[in-house]
Amino acid sequence: MKEHKIITLGEVLMRLSPIRNKRFGQSNEYESFFGGAELNVAASLGNFGLNVSMATVLPSHEIGKEALNYLKRYDVNTTHVIRNNDRLGIYFTEAASMQRGGKVIYDRAFSGFSQLAIDSFDWNDIFQDATWFHWSGITPAVSKNAALLTKVAIEKAYEKGLRISMDYNYRSKLWQWGKSHEEVMPELMEKCHVMSGIHPDVDLLKEEVSDLDFALSGQDMMNKYPHCKVVVFSSRGVISANHHTWQGVLYDGKKVYRSKQYQLTHIVDRIGGGDAFMAGVIYGLHEYEGNLQSCIDFATAASALKHGIDGDFNAITKEEVVQMITSDNGSKVER
Amino acid sequence: MKEHKIITLGEVLMRLSPIRNKRFGQSNEYESFFGGAELNVAASLGNFGLNVSMATVLPSHEIGKEALNYLKRYDVNTTHVIRNNDRLGIYFTEAASMQRGGKVIYDRAFSGFSQLAIDSFDWNDIFQDATWFHWSGITPAVSKNAALLTKVAIEKAYEKGLRISMDYNYRSKLWQWGKSHEEVMPELMEKCHVMSGIHPDVDLLKEEVSDLDFALSGQDMMNKYPHCKVVVFSSRGVISANHHTWQGVLYDGKKVYRSKQYQLTHIVDRIGGGDAFMAGVIYGLHEYEGNLQSCIDFATAASALKHGIDGDFNAITKEEVVQMITSDNGSKVER
Amino acid sequence: MKEHKIITLGEVLMRLSPIRNKRFGQSNEYESFFGGAELNVAASLGNFGLNVSMATVLPSHEIGKEALNYLKRYDVNTTHVIRNNDRLGIYFTEAASMQRGGKVIYDRAFSGFSQLAIDSFDWNDIFQDATWFHWSGITPAVSKNAALLTKVAIEKAYEKGLRISMDYNYRSKLWQWGKSHEEVMPELMEKCHVMSGIHPDVDLLKEEVSDLDFALSGQDMMNKYPHCKVVVFSSRGVISANHHTWQGVLYDGKKVYRSKQYQLTHIVDRIGGGDAFMAGVIYGLHEYEGNLQSCIDFATAASALKHGIDGDFNAITKEEVVQMITSDNGSKVER
Amino acid sequence: MKEHKIITLGEVLMRLSPIRNKRFGQSNEYESFFGGAELNVAASLGNFGLNVSMATVLPSHEIGKEALNYLKRYDVNTTHVIRNNDRLGIYFTEAASMQRGGKVIYDRAFSGFSQLAIDSFDWNDIFQDATWFHWSGITPAVSKNAALLTKVAIEKAYEKGLRISMDYNYRSKLWQWGKSHEEVMPELMEKCHVMSGIHPDVDLLKEEVSDLDFALSGQDMMNKYPHCKVVVFSSRGVISANHHTWQGVLYDGKKVYRSKQYQLTHIVDRIGGGDAFMAGVIYGLHEYEGNLQSCIDFATAASALKHGIDGDFNAITKEEVVQMITSDNGSKVER
Amino acid sequence: MKEHKIITLGEVLMRLSPIRNKRFGQSNEYESFFGGAELNVAASLGNFGLNVSMATVLPSHEIGKEALNYLKRYDVNTTHVIRNNDRLGIYFTEAASMQRGGKVIYDRAFSGFSQLAIDSFDWNDIFQDATWFHWSGITPAVSKNAALLTKVAIEKAYEKGLRISMDYNYRSKLWQWGKSHEEVMPELMEKCHVMSGIHPDVDLLKEEVSDLDFALSGQDMMNKYPHCKVVVFSSRGVISANHHTWQGVLYDGKKVYRSKQYQLTHIVDRIGGGDAFMAGVIYGLHEYEGNLQSCIDFATAASALKHGIDGDFNAITKEEVVQMITSDNGSKVER
Amino acid sequence: MKEHKIITLGEVLMRLSPIRNKRFGQSNEYESFFGGAELNVAASLGNFGLNVSMATVLPSHEIGKEALNYLKRYDVNTTHVIRNNDRLGIYFTEAASMQRGGKVIYDRAFSGFSQLAIDSFDWNDIFQDATWFHWSGITPAVSKNAALLTKVAIEKAYEKGLRISMDYNYRSKLWQWGKSHEEVMPELMEKCHVMSGIHPDVDLLKEEVSDLDFALSGQDMMNKYPHCKVVVFSSRGVISANHHTWQGVLYDGKKVYRSKQYQLTHIVDRIGGGDAFMAGVIYGLHEYEGNLQSCIDFATAASALKHGIDGDFNAITKEEVVQMITSDNGSKVER
Repeated sequence: MKEHKIITLGEVLMRLSPIRNKRFGQSNEYESFFGGAELNVAASLGNFGLNVSMATVLPSHEIGKEALNYLKRYDVNTTHVIRNNDRLGIYFTEAASMQRGGKVIYDRAFSGFSQLAIDSFDWNDIFQDATWFHWSGITPAVSKNAALLTKVAIEKAYEKGLRISMDYNYRSKLWQWGKSHEEVMPELMEKCHVMSGIHPDVDLLKEEVSDLDFALSGQDMMNKYPHCKVVVFSSRGVISANHHTWQGVLYDGKKVYRSKQYQLTHIVDRIGGGDAFMAGVIYGLHEYEGNLQSCIDFATAASALKHGIDGDFNAITKEEVVQMITSDNGSKVER
Repeated sequence: MKEHKIITLGEVLMRLSPIRNKRFGQSNEYESFFGGAELNVAASLGNFGLNVSMATVLPSHEIGKEALNYLKRYDVNTTHVIRNNDRLGIYFTEAASMQRGGKVIYDRAFSGFSQLAIDSFDWNDIFQDATWFHWSGITPAVSKNAALLTKVAIEKAYEKGLRISMDYNYRSKLWQWGKSHEEVMPELMEKCHVMSGIHPDVDLLKEEVSDLDFALSGQDMMNKYPHCKVVVFSSRGVISANHHTWQGVLYDGKKVYRSKQYQLTHIVDRIGGGDAFMAGVIYGLHEYEGNLQSCIDFATAASALKHGIDGDFNAITKEEVVQMITSDNGSKVER
Repeated sequence: MKEHKIITLGEVLMRLSPIRNKRFGQSNEYESFFGGAELNVAASLGNFGLNVSMATVLPSHEIGKEALNYLKRYDVNTTHVIRNNDRLGIYFTEAASMQRGGKVIYDRAFSGFSQLAIDSFDWNDIFQDATWFHWSGITPAVSKNAALLTKVAIEKAYEKGLRISMDYNYRSKLWQWGKSHEEVMPELMEKCHVMSGIHPDVDLLKEEVSDLDFALSGQDMMNKYPHCKVVVFSSRGVISANHHTWQGVLYDGKKVYRSKQYQLTHIVDRIGGGDAFMAGVIYGLHEYEGNLQSCIDFATAASALKHGIDGDFNAITKEEVVQMITSDNGSKVER
Repeated sequence: MKEHKIITLGEVLMRLSPIRNKRFGQSNEYESFFGGAELNVAASLGNFGLNVSMATVLPSHEIGKEALNYLKRYDVNTTHVIRNNDRLGIYFTEAASMQRGGKVIYDRAFSGFSQLAIDSFDWNDIFQDATWFHWSGITPAVSKNAALLTKVAIEKAYEKGLRISMDYNYRSKLWQWGKSHEEVMPELMEKCHVMSGIHPDVDLLKEEVSDLDFALSGQDMMNKYPHCKVVVFSSRGVISANHHTWQGVLYDGKKVYRSKQYQLTHIVDRIGGGDAFMAGVIYGLHEYEGNLQSCIDFATAASALKHGIDGDFNAITKEEVVQMITSDNGSKVER
Repeated sequence: MKEHKIITLGEVLMRLSPIRNKRFGQSNEYESFFGGAELNVAASLGNFGLNVSMATVLPSHEIGKEALNYLKRYDVNTTHVIRNNDRLGIYFTEAASMQRGGKVIYDRAFSGFSQLAIDSFDWNDIFQDATWFHWSGITPAVSKNAALLTKVAIEKAYEKGLRISMDYNYRSKLWQWGKSHEEVMPELMEKCHVMSGIHPDVDLLKEEVSDLDFALSGQDMMNKYPHCKVVVFSSRGVISANHHTWQGVLYDGKKVYRSKQYQLTHIVDRIGGGDAFMAGVIYGLHEYEGNLQSCIDFATAASALKHGIDGDFNAITKEEVVQMITSDNGSKVER
Repeated sequence: MKEHKIITLGEVLMRLSPIRNKRFGQSNEYESFFGGAELNVAASLGNFGLNVSMATVLPSHEIGKEALNYLKRYDVNTTHVIRNNDRLGIYFTEAASMQRGGKVIYDRAFSGFSQLAIDSFDWNDIFQDATWFHWSGITPAVSKNAALLTKVAIEKAYEKGLRISMDYNYRSKLWQWGKSHEEVMPELMEKCHVMSGIHPDVDLLKEEVSDLDFALSGQDMMNKYPHCKVVVFSSRGVISANHHTWQGVLYDGKKVYRSKQYQLTHIVDRIGGGDAFMAGVIYGLHEYEGNLQSCIDFATAASALKHGIDGDFNAITKEEVVQMITSDNGSKVER
């Protein structure tokens, strides 16, 4: 792996979920996690051993400190974390069960991140020696300021010659600040090199979809955004809350690379699955430089494994990902 | 929905289950719930927004108070709850797992409800403005007194012109007081308008059973009990403790209405499934007055969702039930 | 059942598993169990009502006392348990999930059992009135002393005319003391009458394997070890961490007896599955003396049920095992 | 007790506290409660059997529903609860321990309550048949709107002839909206009849303070606010986080009534102690009409007992309060 | 210690307490224990290494089995435990806190024990080789049958020459079957040799009470019951729920032996304290035969330590008791 | 504060304690912490913001990774942490309660640290730019190798001109490798500048002890170890397991500096108290360079606060320590 330094920009959220998969109203005990699309990517990259740093803001109070320690724990550099007195965004989640979907109650309005001034970060300093910048469509969705801040970051990253990756990550409950994602995103995507999905939660990809269809979809994006060199899709088929199918696809302008399709039959927690996929793609592009098949295989296996783990963070080692790819069946007891 | 006021009569029980699905003997921590067939129906109706009141007895001690608060919490009117110094019935449950069935240890003998005097309730007062009375076969099963009390209630309800619904709810471990259900039930069923099942736990209904067979079964009951206008069946197919099939059927003397059959593949708790179905039927008959197909669809979806929820109570909103019926697949994360 | 007294020799271990199936690093709460291949067999036999006694060593401290009480609780006679100041072996386990395998971290080096002197037990006393001796391949794997001690025990048991059963139980992470299992085991197996598997974790048995193949495999062992009268195999097919198939086979030198194949679709804990099978075989050989089909049916059903239970111990009654064999489907709620 | 109907106005908050008294950062499990000064008063009054109703706002989401059910559970009438899409205020608390003080992290900015329009409530409707209005200094502290809304409510209550009680409840972390409490409170207090403390957390009252000093303090307030007929003080002496002294004092313009001083030596949770005192005063003024000594005795005993209970709510029956007053020592096991 | 075999007769109860010392209504999780005055004595004796056996009845269901295993675990012989289909008595307890007393909700009416036929036990068999019989005033309190059964047992024990000990253990919530304790107890006490207290919960013994007063009290009992050779008292002074004083006194007809008085300042669970004292007396009379000072010192220290332990059972070794007596201060960390 | 870099050498242990302060044998759930005298000092220093690095060894398995993350989380530099396949030392602790002392079961024999080769660390590299080295008497106690390794480290540190601090930390259960602490420690202490206690757990220091006595004690040590410039003592008076007194004393060869004496009346966890004191001394010597009174005040307050916190780690900020020193009473709720 060549010298690298990856920067992410995004909001850190506290996640609160009723313990033991109870419904809201059934329990007065909540388990807390830290999450957020870009944090999930960053923690996953740090955990895989990449050099990663996150630009964000955290409250100066004790729970803000806890969040900061969470970053350190997973080897995400915290040099560029601002501390102030604004609130930490929160989201409450309730687990899905059988035919009942999961629920998210967002309580992230007025968060410190959404209120950051546009010049909060010194990008010259942050991008010093950096080689890669990752952002997602959640950041411009939270507030006008955040959208402007994202734009500044992308432009500076582009100017400094970094590779730029993005995950569209459309969330209908966000984008409340006055503009729609269709108005904002295209301009931000213009300078990006690696793109994930359009609306990745929309299940437009079926196993039966031909490679040609993927290629056309990907080529479309490349035509629209000429800097884009790699398009990835993660395809989720929802059979029930507990059983999904999962497959990754990558298009590089020449060829479609497709992972095997996984049957995820006893899902523990799907939140963060897409972020784990994105982290896997970034890791794969660093680790398997010329080998795009290995890249998509890694990303898909890593994110398939995420579905078996509680919380946003993909608590999986790269060795476990590789073992899953190379063995027929990873699920033996090692003893 | 027209003006209505629904009355139920039944026993409230404390349910104690080893936490985290341990077997008896594996844990010294129990999670407590309140349950009982008629309470489950009442709480479900209150939760769906119907006007419902329960005639029962609770101890005057603190746990009796807790049970009373449980009723209030789910909008079940408690005006007709007697408080005295007799014991609260208890049942211990152990969760099923794979090929191992669930276990219920009843400790409800000598409960306050089973010892109620026949004239404990002032039915003239209770049925004031009431439009509907619901009872189940569990109530006459617990004691001779309870059986007599049920008879009085049914007669008074009939006399006052209420619609009467009943759920057969046969439990072999009950009916210990001297008479069998075959001796007692027919007389009680004579004045009922809506009936659920005969032995609903006996899996006599398969997907392949024809509508004609249902019609014949239902017609049989209507012939035997001429006041009966609607017969419903819930059909459970047990593949393993974790995987059942579930389907509802309704016959109105003219036609068989059948819901879709659900695959319940990762069951959390099947206890209360039948009660959730009964509540769904009563709700459906109120909400979708002329539309019996909507009624059985609602009842079946509501009770299918119950299987994904811990505890006796069907902690589901009517909006979630409707969403499940109208969407192909309810199990997406809303965010 | 004839008069009998079963003796086992083996190490007792403390097992620590992150609660609620968390991964290592996700939780700072561990649930503790006691386990070990021979203890699992002994506790299962005691629980089924056989007369069983275990020769082992436990620390004199409070956790050693707790382990001792565990044996008493499941009716394993503790007369031959040595108490000293050496350490109790520990193993940490992490549950499997979907495509991710389970993990075992052994911390059993330098345990009291592994350091036992060869003459620690007075076998004349222990085998007084005994009729059966059971050991497994884990015992000689832990240390040279333990291997020698096993040899002495087997020879003494043979000399006293006991029936001897063994479970090969190969663990690649053990056998660190200088000799390989191929060097040590054959001599120990020479005097055994009942043998389980060779490498039972290797999935060499498929449903499609013919009875003839089993017969040949079994006959091979009998030819090599002429005292051997019964060979059993448990065949596990791993579809995912949550879904295995499970079948037992028994060969008596004349005929192959095969249980039905179980679909284990929502596995709770597979650890101890093989031990539950071995206990079932020993129980079956005592209870169903002439009837080898009943024996393998019992052993397979008992061990299938184990997979639905947390912890090493097969917390199942013999009545539940029989119910599973005789009913189409054990998974109904009894109420 | 005469006919009465008590109205409160105030914010409902979710409280999240690390379980088992861990510090922030030591646990990722939080126990949730609902609280807020006026809710605590209302729930206590409902629990004592008074007729009480709360004007507030709750989110329309599931956690808002849970909060609504909490009110119902403790017999607080919810007719005047607005449901909308704004956020529910949150506060995180960390328990005190020995010499370490407790910590509160407020996350209540931008809550639905703080953003209520001034005309959100129809006071004519709410005060229909009402006899008493209670508010506290926390409500005007949260936002300008809330301060104006409080003013409107007080004026309307006064106009309708209700008795008005208030608790000063000064919190230095609030009052961030532009005016100080000194600027806002006097005008609001002008029409109040019953007042609690000035800065009740400031420990200006010692056991050695003479009745004369109390009388002067109380008379001062009555001179300033001529409608005021009763002034109460709760006096807390902090020896350590686990050991406080607690005493209540009441002045009616003529005489000082003083409760006994309690030694609170193993405090479980002091949050809500002052609210429990206020509720006790209101209850006492209703129950013991002419008897002000009984009133202050009840209020002080009730709030002393609160310190032994987890959570904001004073889960104590009036019988327990009376028992504590009349017995030398309430702490025997009843059996 | 001479050869001995101690027999107890009494009811086994399941105890359910809200976890983490919550009040009833604050938690839906209960921790379960097994208890009962005589069981507590028996388990303590077994734990100290005496030979003890209990005559009782347990349900044949799984929770009955769990109770049976509890006895085995603490070395209480279970040969004379009847298993039948009657219910297991239950009691719910709520912990005391500061000035609030603890609460017990009995749910033991109609238990299997209370319904035992008078000839349920074969005392000739049970008292075979026995040397000591212990009973308490709780047993005759539960039902007429139980009182008669106690009488039979005492007479048979006396006839066979056993030493008989008794603990008065008056509980006002029991004795509901028609006779008062004053009517029943004297006849039962007539043949007893060792007696504890009269109304041990009544705090009639203060530190300042003179030895002469104790001697007169004890002598009174000996005059009334001439077989009585030893009278013991445990004296509890209740300062708050968390702080008691504790002292034991013994009178042998000649002299008063008094232990030191313990300050129990952070009580964890007082239930079972008196039973721990009784067990300590019986142990002391066996272990320190001629030395009555050592006997009362042991009993008092053992029962003082009980107050620091959750649950009915005095989970203390005899070495810990001795260490507490001999050292100034037991509360150092051993490391 | 001047430029500094502090190095510690010591063993990291896993600590397992029954949850909710249960005794061993009462719970099968353990809470895990990481601890060890030098780790506790290092984590405390990192938490106070000093630059600190730890030389130790951790297993390469997942729990070793968890321990490594623990160091990162509290800002302890992990550059010099060796990873290998040896075991992690464990210790089990049981909380003290009232008159019952706490218990520690060590399971640290054969740990990776105790088996480190003498040349495992490259001290030239580790001490590069370092200014301070801290060790404790636990390290030479665990094994001969560890003692030799400590000696090498001290000599190298002295040679490089670092200040050296040590904590005697005598543990009678350690020192099993052949030499006594009296034989080993003096040589190691010869080159140290700051020393804590001799046997700090022995309560030889009472409040009434005069400053002269402290001065003589300290001077004694300085005479024996001429490099020693500062001697500190922490004085613990044990009234019960829940109530200690705590005071710190410092002697600099000229004068005795004494902190106030704290009453620790509701102790949560005393383990790590001495380590928190040592960390406070080191912090104080850095932060309050010339001011030894401030140094001992800080160290004593910090370690007093530790007693109110679960686990080995002193989860306290330096601001909280300062607040405790400057205020009369730290235990108010901040809100």
